[in-house]
Amino acid sequence: MSRESVSKGKGAKGGSRWLRLLRRRVPVLAWAPQYSRMAGVADVVAGVTLGLTLVPQSIAYAALADLPVQYGLYSSFVGTILYMFLGTVKEVSIGPTSLMALLTLQTCRGLPVEYVVLLTFLSGCVVLLMGLLRLGFMVELISVSVTSGFTSATAVIIVAAQVKGVLGLTFTAESVFDNIQQVIWKWKEVRGGDCALAAVCCTILLLLRKLKDLKVRDERLGKALWLMSIGRNALVVLGASVFAYCTYDPNHLIVKLSGKVEPGLPAVGLPPFSVQAGNETVGFPDMVRRLGPTVLMMPVVMVIANIAIAKAFTPGGRVDATQEMVTLGLVNVAGSFFRAMPTCGAFTRSAVAHSSGVRTPAAGLYSGLITLLALIFMTKYFYFIPKACLSSVLICAVIFMIDIDIVRRLWRQSKSELLVLCVTFAVSVCVTVELGVLAGVLADLALLLYSLMHPAVQLHTVKTEAGEAVVVSPTVGLVYVNAERVLAHASGAAPAPLPLLLDCGGLALLDYAAEQALERLAKKFKSSSRLFLPFNAGGDVARRLALLEHVDARALRAHTAPHALAAAQPATGEPAETSVLLGDE
Amino acid sequence: MSRESVSKGKGAKGGSRWLRLLRRRVPVLAWAPQYSRMAGVADVVAGVTLGLTLVPQSIAYAALADLPVQYGLYSSFVGTILYMFLGTVKEVSIGPTSLMALLTLQTCRGLPVEYVVLLTFLSGCVVLLMGLLRLGFMVELISVSVTSGFTSATAVIIVAAQVKGVLGLTFTAESVFDNIQQVIWKWKEVRGGDCALAAVCCTILLLLRKLKDLKVRDERLGKALWLMSIGRNALVVLGASVFAYCTYDPNHLIVKLSGKVEPGLPAVGLPPFSVQAGNETVGFPDMVRRLGPTVLMMPVVMVIANIAIAKAFTPGGRVDATQEMVTLGLVNVAGSFFRAMPTCGAFTRSAVAHSSGVRTPAAGLYSGLITLLALIFMTKYFYFIPKACLSSVLICAVIFMIDIDIVRRLWRQSKSELLVLCVTFAVSVCVTVELGVLAGVLADLALLLYSLMHPAVQLHTVKTEAGEAVVVSPTVGLVYVNAERVLAHASGAAPAPLPLLLDCGGLALLDYAAEQALERLAKKFKSSSRLFLPFNAGGDVARRLALLEHVDARALRAHTAPHALAAAQPATGEPAETSVLLGDE
Repeated sequence: MSRESVSKGKGAKGGSRWLRLLRRRVPVLAWAPQYSRMAGVADVVAGVTLGLTLVPQSIAYAALADLPVQYGLYSSFVGTILYMFLGTVKEVSIGPTSLMALLTLQTCRGLPVEYVVLLTFLSGCVVLLMGLLRLGFMVELISVSVTSGFTSATAVIIVAAQVKGVLGLTFTAESVFDNIQQVIWKWKEVRGGDCALAAVCCTILLLLRKLKDLKVRDERLGKALWLMSIGRNALVVLGASVFAYCTYDPNHLIVKLSGKVEPGLPAVGLPPFSVQAGNETVGFPDMVRRLGPTVLMMPVVMVIANIAIAKAFTPGGRVDATQEMVTLGLVNVAGSFFRAMPTCGAFTRSAVAHSSGVRTPAAGLYSGLITLLALIFMTKYFYFIPKACLSSVLICAVIFMIDIDIVRRLWRQSKSELLVLCVTFAVSVCVTVELGVLAGVLADLALLLYSLMHPAVQLHTVKTEAGEAVVVSPTVGLVYVNAERVLAHASGAAPAPLPLLLDCGGLALLDYAAEQALERLAKKFKSSSRLFLPFNAGGDVARRLALLEHVDARALRAHTAPHALAAAQPATGEPAETSVLLGDE
Repeated sequence: MSRESVSKGKGAKGGSRWLRLLRRRVPVLAWAPQYSRMAGVADVVAGVTLGLTLVPQSIAYAALADLPVQYGLYSSFVGTILYMFLGTVKEVSIGPTSLMALLTLQTCRGLPVEYVVLLTFLSGCVVLLMGLLRLGFMVELISVSVTSGFTSATAVIIVAAQVKGVLGLTFTAESVFDNIQQVIWKWKEVRGGDCALAAVCCTILLLLRKLKDLKVRDERLGKALWLMSIGRNALVVLGASVFAYCTYDPNHLIVKLSGKVEPGLPAVGLPPFSVQAGNETVGFPDMVRRLGPTVLMMPVVMVIANIAIAKAFTPGGRVDATQEMVTLGLVNVAGSFFRAMPTCGAFTRSAVAHSSGVRTPAAGLYSGLITLLALIFMTKYFYFIPKACLSSVLICAVIFMIDIDIVRRLWRQSKSELLVLCVTFAVSVCVTVELGVLAGVLADLALLLYSLMHPAVQLHTVKTEAGEAVVVSPTVGLVYVNAERVLAHASGAAPAPLPLLLDCGGLALLDYAAEQALERLAKKFKSSSRLFLPFNAGGDVARRLALLEHVDARALRAHTAPHALAAAQPATGEPAETSVLLGDE
């Protein structure tokens, strides 16, 4: 049974208002009672398949964030299982993601792991708060151009950071350029074994990726190929590890290995609110200060990513943003009790879940269990995972995030939005991804503001029995950023003796500043005995314009320019009376 | 001859394009050749009157900025004389202002005077640059509410800062609350003499202020009263100083005096790019770092103030913002060679110039000369100006800047803009004026964004021969911040089988994100074989919508909903052909 029909079932079952709210806030209550065996089988298949992607990705993202690899798995199982109870979109797969790992790296580089866990906790709290305050609308401020720009930048940064793993080099580098420079400097230390293994891994990964598009007659062979394609990360990590295990010689390593891993489940406990640094204890305020603005930006990025994925996989795109945010917040808060790094939905894994035929969020239970099993039984073998192999997995996952197609489309359709994309990309790559998003959002708002400040103003001349007149039709509305400009343009374009008619039909926005500007213009026209007539005004606009002292309100309700002129006609012959009519006394 | 007729004369005299540009950039070339004797007499009267206000105000504002009082005069004469050559608005009176003095105080409190001069120089450079880059449009981002909020806040801060002068107390305090607290703490040190003098000064100032409204029959008496009213600051400062001089006893001061003043003209030289602090030399970068963001905010505030004044005194409000900014920048750069504090146009003084019947910017020459004479001949007597008297002059000048009336109007007409005013006021008073302006601008933009995100969407049902349909008419336009919301609302409100018609007549704004949202909606409708028809689209919008793959372009040019339905009718019977028409191949 699909999620959609389940949600429709809710209304029918109805019950009290509180029950409905409970079902909305704990969606498992809505679908679990109707959970069928068929759905169960589908979820097991999808969950296990997803687990095969989740385990190697988690390990790789932990390595990317410069954390011991088991931290990736710590981060996966809590979120995945919790999302089953609270999540609304069956495809979403919570866990470490490239973006989360990168932001964690940029903020916590060189700091003890306690900072990462605290970051998870605080980010969770902020997301929870954003959900409870219904701040989901903030996501609407982030346009496609910005999302595309920072996603591509993330991919570029990750590839740059993983080059050292592929080449078997060891160094710490902050930026993309730093990475390139270090690679050039250390060119002589490049290790042949790591390069060769990475080349093999990348080739296999890219080939296996193509495998699922292969058209075969036999359905079972097709399914097998598809499963190999989906599980390629697990296969490659397994193969490389077996190779490393078999050729293991502690005195002469052919390829660099991940090294010692703490076996078993994480120590459960409160997130760390202080940390021992040498002989000193760093307190909570100092830790927060060290994490800096990331405590606010990380949640925003989390929410953007999660809601974008949820939207992509929801027919019609109507996502309960509040519920998704609350869930994401709880997932991270709970995760921080299990020493998790920050997590959110991952696009690649969600796509895997989708193509595996997931039916309900219960699939998360099975992939969570796989992660747990890996933690319990396999951590001791993680020692043998070659670093070059993890780098290959990461590189082959993220290069497809670079979106060239949108650049081509924007070049044709909207060069200004292409500029926004480029600004986001450039700032993300050269500074940090958070600042890139911020710069992109500001650039987008600046463009929007520019178009509000320079609206198209239509001017035309009408001829009626009552004489000629110039009609000005503002299109966007009159607000403080454009009122003076639009009205100055209009009164400048209308030759001196002709009446000026203002078509209020397009005045969707009208603020106090615009009213004042209209008042000043009306006063100026009145002082030179010229006619300034607003017409075609809707209910609220008409009411507000009628309240102004100098504005001629006689034609406000006239729908066309000739009607407006006619409405003002009888009095124009008698100026003395006009001024009384205008409310000039 | 008035400025307006002069500007009209320009076009007639014509000459080459370069000559016209030169006249525009050095406006004195345009009006000087036609300068008449009548205008000269009027300018002398206005200039001298203005000088009588300028000298005491300059002294008081220097005291407010915690500078030796002669610095006020250093700041007046250069700007006033230079503006004559480059300024475009005859009323504008350049010099120290309450806002400039306050910003200087907030930034340079406790620092050597070299910092103030450097701030003048840097602000001038930034304003000049803003002018050359034509950034005058930035002023349009500052609405009436923000201007009113920070002006009132300035008045409140200045009054709070001057209370100590009135009470004869000495302390340094940063904020309004700090001032109040210190006054309470030092209540026992309040000096009777200063209080009494301040009470007398304030009473006389407020009475003299009312004098010019007095209706008298005798025209000459009327003019005398008017002159006394305009020159009240000079009168009061003179009177109080004479009193202090006569009762002077170095061992027992009845009232606190301004103290030793360096006589004569300022030392002319390059602005200071380094300063001696104890045994160390503070270099240029450190000085700039110390001045901080004020180097950018001070110019913005200057430009706002100056352009607001220029607009207020220009009939029709069409100010050459670029020219005004270039002039203001040069005035400050030049001023910094004469040890000036930051200067811009002052509203109160410009009003004095206006009511004194000023004819051309030449009036500035005469008030500048008066300032120079004061510097040369009177600085030695400045020692005797009582501090309480200067405080009274300041308080009586700024309390009328507090604008209660606009609060009443906004309460009736636009509570959200009242909120902007309050935010600006509160942040200005509690933090700094610059941050107040910034907060106000951001609040205003947030309101604008909110109204863009939640536009009014009109929905109505039409019935034609071809059947029923729901028509949705967006009013502001579809952009990335509202497209999803508006379209989701529209498709949710239209009951399932009915066609949805989109009236594009109001689509003044349409960006890439909105196009994509339209495309998604069209695709969804097409997959459920429902009709989604945009109609009534203008040239550019129609062209862009026609390029989209899934959008049904058959009715784009139809002006009414029934026409649109009719345009789409012939094909609806044959779905196979429809999809070809839609470009679905």
